[in-house]
Order: sequence, then structure tokens, then C-alpha cells
Amino acid sequence: MRNLAVTNATISKVKNGLSIEKPDLLAVEEPLEIRVGFGDTLRKEKKVAVTMRTPGHDFELALGFLFTEGLIQPKDVVSIKHCQQVKPEEEGNVVRVELKPDANIELEGLERNFYTTSSCGVCGKASIESIHQKCAPLVSDLIIDEHIIHASPNVLREAQNVFEHTGGLHAVGLFDSSGKLILLREDIGRHNAFDKLVGAALNAGIDSSEHFVLVSGRASFELVQKSVMAGIPIMAAVGAPSSLAVDLAEKSNLTLLGFVRNNSFNVYTGAQRVQSSKLKVKS
Amino acid sequence: MRNLAVTNATISKVKNGLSIEKPDLLAVEEPLEIRVGFGDTLRKEKKVAVTMRTPGHDFELALGFLFTEGLIQPKDVVSIKHCQQVKPEEEGNVVRVELKPDANIELEGLERNFYTTSSCGVCGKASIESIHQKCAPLVSDLIIDEHIIHASPNVLREAQNVFEHTGGLHAVGLFDSSGKLILLREDIGRHNAFDKLVGAALNAGIDSSEHFVLVSGRASFELVQKSVMAGIPIMAAVGAPSSLAVDLAEKSNLTLLGFVRNNSFNVYTGAQRVQSSKLKVKS
Repeated sequence: MRNLAVTNATISKVKNGLSIEKPDLLAVEEPLEIRVGFGDTLRKEKKVAVTMRTPGHDFELALGFLFTEGLIQPKDVVSIKHCQQVKPEEEGNVVRVELKPDANIELEGLERNFYTTSSCGVCGKASIESIHQKCAPLVSDLIIDEHIIHASPNVLREAQNVFEHTGGLHAVGLFDSSGKLILLREDIGRHNAFDKLVGAALNAGIDSSEHFVLVSGRASFELVQKSVMAGIPIMAAVGAPSSLAVDLAEKSNLTLLGFVRNNSFNVYTGAQRVQSSKLKVKS
Repeated sequence: MRNLAVTNATISKVKNGLSIEKPDLLAVEEPLEIRVGFGDTLRKEKKVAVTMRTPGHDFELALGFLFTEGLIQPKDVVSIKHCQQVKPEEEGNVVRVELKPDANIELEGLERNFYTTSSCGVCGKASIESIHQKCAPLVSDLIIDEHIIHASPNVLREAQNVFEHTGGLHAVGLFDSSGKLILLREDIGRHNAFDKLVGAALNAGIDSSEHFVLVSGRASFELVQKSVMAGIPIMAAVGAPSSLAVDLAEKSNLTLLGFVRNNSFNVYTGAQRVQSSKLKVKS
């Protein structure tokens, strides 16, 4: 029963003065430790991060995390496995990413803890510059029709079986230019769901520059960073973006859309990639 | 204009084929670096964490973070100030928490990066044990009437002026047993909003054991941890809890409520602290 995305529970539902016991499902949250190795021995192993995630797609999560945080290049990955030499209760919660012996891994940023994006200063400008040191602004001629954007939240929601059960998981979907959902990943943490999606896209050899991504919650700096690092030129969010998310999107030539719901959305940056059928009006 | 919670932007709203330019407000996101000092010199300074937060209540955030992560005891804090010896663009984004020269600070967990709760193993059980090493299960005779719980999300929402403007901020509210909102804090990150609330409660000398807390989103392990560390015996969430959040609540004698909306909520643990007027029914 370990490492499933949902688990059973008994709850009491309180409504109108009545308390009714009933079975329920919970989204599972468990720590995952990501290690990198450089061949042969345990001595050449580095513990990189621990993240609280919903079990499942752990290898994609590890790959997507290391890549979108700018720590490794996917071409340097030799293999990804669950570690066997751990305590029984830790089994399935420790992943080792094997890199080529001569691969580089940028660990400096991680030593700052919690956020990796401020190694050259503690301000929004420095956070954006540190992304651009790792990754050039996006180049993509992708154009998406507004009706495809409008339809995408329903497509994502219908595909979210787990979400229907627990209401407790964030979802991230990768869509092609015709509005077809290519990949869907879910997690208790929105950053984990995004990392899993990017890892899956890398494994499948998908050309990110021809797709757009939809996230079920808000658009934070961290998610925009991951989209830029992964080369996805359009990010749509059901919720609101932050100021720094908009700044990074602007400077990275990413199209950022928010409040995608009820047949409406806001364009924060990169309007040239959205095709709208009628006239544009300035208020 | 720096360090405000909201900032202005111009967006295009796309609806029914029309794209209309209009002014909008964005929730601000900026990094905050938290340092601790032990008196006198810069040499005795340690950079503890960088978190992406909405500016405002930074001292409460630093205090609440260090306390709920189990790193310091509030009694050891001498002062909290913004660092002056930083680059101009970093001003207001670096906070130094001055501890007594003989104070202890537990930094071991932080070196694992991203999550501090797994220093004794990488599994849910170990995560819970590491909390209990720092903090005993909650003891509190607090009982809240179900109608007060039902009413709390509206009280929180009405008090959220910033939320009304941007739709982009998480909120956390501390309520007394009569349903009065005592403290409200908001942030782009739910963990930051919780830390700010705890820091504010510490500063105000509020007895946490006589209050309940309501969070605007989901109840993760991390938030339950912060409630337990802060001694708040009841956590209510508008969204769903995770499996590990429920496990930690159970083992910490915390009352955990979820899906608090539409005059209804689910009781996951600690039902003895909820007073319901009618009979209990087992389905």
C-alpha cells in the first residue's frame, strides 16, 4: 500500500448540526530525498534536496527538479533509481540520479536553502539575473488561439481523476497548439507537479517550444522559472501571478496568462502569442 | 514604492474575442534573507534561509519562521532589524535576528535543504518524530462551537483587503473561542503567512492554546507542523489536508478541520474540540 497517490481515512462531516462519520480519501504526502552520484562508489554521492511530494513519477520529479533548478543538464544523466541501501521505512523515498563521471553540478545556489535563485543578491532583479545566467530568453513563434486557452482548464480538470477524489492535488498540464492535453502530472506541491511534467517531457523527447503549460493554481516566480528553464513559451494559470513572476516572464519573453476561467483570461506578458478573433480595444 | 504588498500593472483581458487593456494590481513577491547574529561582530553571523515572500511584517516572518521550524526559542531573541550593510537594491530584503550570545540554534536540519523535518530519516514516520523531538503533543481544553467554525471563512475573507484587490495572496487568521478574528496575515506563500501570524502572536503575548487558526488554502504537513510548534490546538483549512498532515495532527493531539465552506466541514482528527448541537450519526 506504500507510495500510492491517495490513501483511505475515516472522517466526520459536520453540517447543519449533524456530524456524520464516513470514509474519505486523502492525497498522500511523503518526503523524497534526491541524491546525485558520479559513478562507482557511495563516496561520490551528494544529497541535494528533500521535498515533500505525492509519491509517483519520482524519477521524473528528480530529473525535472535538477534540470529546472539549473543544477544539471539532462544529457549528463546516466540512470535514475530508487536507493536500495536505506532503512525499510525509507524504501521508495530516496532517489539517486547517476551522472556521467565528468558532469558538472551547480550546488552553490542550493546552499542558500529554500530558494536557489538569489546567489548573486537578495532582490527581484538579482533573482531574474541568476535565471538568465543559466538560460537565455525564450525564442518561439508559437501562437495559440484564445478559444484553446479558454477550453484548457476543463480539459485539465476532466483528466484529473485523483483530484476528483481528494480535492487535494495541484495539477499541471502540457497542451499542444491544437489544445490536446499531451501530459498531466499532479502533486500535493505545485512545484513538484511541474517538475514531474518537465521530467516526463524530457523522457518523451517532446519539443517544449511547441507547447503551452496550464497550472491549476497561482503563477509564482518559481513556476515561471521552471517554464523558462524547460523552454515552454506560454504559461497559463487558473489563479493570479505574482509581481516577480510577471517581471521574469517579461524579461524571458514568456507569455504569461492568469485567471484562466469562465471563458476569460488576463494577458500579463507576451500577447503576440495569443490569437484573438475580434478587434483589440484600449480602455 | 519598494516593499509594498501590491504593485500596479497593465494587462489585457481577453473575453469573447475581445482584448481590452486595463490597469490591474499584482501581489508583490520578493526574496527575504533571514540571518541570525550572536552579538558584536559580523563574524558571528549565519545566513539561515531565503524565502520568496510578500514584503511586509518581515520581522514577524523571521521570528515565526525560526520558531516554528524549531531553530530557536523566542526568549533568546534580543532584537530584529533590517540589515543596513547591503547593496541598495537589497535594502529591506535582509533581516538579522539578534540572539543572546549563549543561545542555541539548531541548524542541522536546514542543511538538508528545502525541508527541515527529516533529519532522522526520509519517511512520514521520521518526519513526525522529528517534530516530536522538539515539541510535545498539544494539551488544550479548548472547545469551539460548529457555528463559529462555519462563520470563520467569511470573517477572514471580509478582512482580506489585499486579497480583494489581487486574488493572489494566501491568508491565515487567528480566532478566539467566540469567533472574533484576532490576527490576520497574508502572503504569496502560505507558509510565510503562517509564520507572520505566529511571529505577531508571540510579539503580542497571545496565549495560542486558547485560539484556533484558519488557513485559506490546503493543510499541508508543513502548516500542521507550524501549528503544533506554535501551540495552536485547532487548525481549520478551506481546502483539503494531506495524509501526512492528518497523521501529524493525530499524533500531536491537534484538531484538524478541512473543506470549511458552505456551512459544512470535515473533522479529520481531534473531534472532542468541536461542539455540535445535534445528535451524532454513524453512516
